[in-house]
Amino acid sequence: MTEKLRLQLKFLAEADKLKNILRQTYIIDGSRQENSAEHSWHFALTAMTLFEYCGIEGVDIDRVLKMALVHDLVEVYAGDTPAYDKKGNLDKGEREKEAADRLFPLLPDEQAAEYRSLWEEFERIQTPDALFGSAVDRLQSFHNIHLSGAGPWKKYAVTSDEVLERMAPVKTALPRLWEYVESVIDENIKRGNIKPNDGQ
Amino acid sequence: MTEKLRLQLKFLAEADKLKNILRQTYIIDGSRQENSAEHSWHFALTAMTLFEYCGIEGVDIDRVLKMALVHDLVEVYAGDTPAYDKKGNLDKGEREKEAADRLFPLLPDEQAAEYRSLWEEFERIQTPDALFGSAVDRLQSFHNIHLSGAGPWKKYAVTSDEVLERMAPVKTALPRLWEYVESVIDENIKRGNIKPNDGQ
Repeated sequence: MTEKLRLQLKFLAEADKLKNILRQTYIIDGSRQENSAEHSWHFALTAMTLFEYCGIEGVDIDRVLKMALVHDLVEVYAGDTPAYDKKGNLDKGEREKEAADRLFPLLPDEQAAEYRSLWEEFERIQTPDALFGSAVDRLQSFHNIHLSGAGPWKKYAVTSDEVLERMAPVKTALPRLWEYVESVIDENIKRGNIKPNDGQ
Repeated sequence: MTEKLRLQLKFLAEADKLKNILRQTYIIDGSRQENSAEHSWHFALTAMTLFEYCGIEGVDIDRVLKMALVHDLVEVYAGDTPAYDKKGNLDKGEREKEAADRLFPLLPDEQAAEYRSLWEEFERIQTPDALFGSAVDRLQSFHNIHLSGAGPWKKYAVTSDEVLERMAPVKTALPRLWEYVESVIDENIKRGNIKPNDGQ
């Protein structure tokens, strides 16, 4: 076995740890928290299933799927930072950069650069692929939170403005899903799961 | 929201159940069984990471990734059938066909046909994409079984010939990984985890 292949198999074993990183989101039956590995799969499946609604020009779904597969890998060392955890998000960038500096160099140089670049592109949410990917990532969580009892919305006492801001990429990247997003927010305000902002 | 979109969101919620389908394989730290959703993610990540070693002409890695994402979906209804469970494998085809008849029609017709076709192609292991996909699927399990204490090999008292037969697609589709497969089998024979066949 070459040293290169040995590195790749070691990286794949290290990536296995993503199965132990728990998110605030529950699986839909409400029985337990979702982990970041199965979330990555569900995100990718959602991306391929809803791609026909993509409202942005020039999105390459094949790159988006690869992005989905690597987008949470740094959590192996940095842990998951819940979207509505304001304190955790203060140093999320720094913690994840440190994790990236440890994780990606496990791979051979060229592949390390490729995976790190996909992750950085996703994090910056600026290219068409990253915009679409980010919208789908958030939609997957939103849909699951709604169907599993709104746990994170209640835990962090989120307001409708906070959810609307979090879901903003959907408006551009999946415009035909926006009506669904708004209706779910309205329903969860009525249920007392999301706090209404003034004027709503 | 259109009826079509409603169906797709319902399918994605149904697919969530794959996170509750437990395999015989453990996650690498040995703490619990792996589920089929996180396995699907790990399979896809392995496919993109080891694609450079593909020994078959004409493999489209982007199609293989899609295949990986849908390859276990029927388990939502059919459950996981362990590779070395001889009894379970007797009616696996029938149970999974019935599950496919229930699951894929949740989707709009065209997408139902596309996903079902990807799954059937994967199951038949005949096209270049399915051969490579199948080899990676088996390699992911093999690598994880080896690193997590050989649970399924011990539970089903498998012989080296059975493992070699199971891993045969790797010989063609990932020829440079074959030496690794053989060395892991030898090591697990020595450890008493795999039963040697006569002459070994």
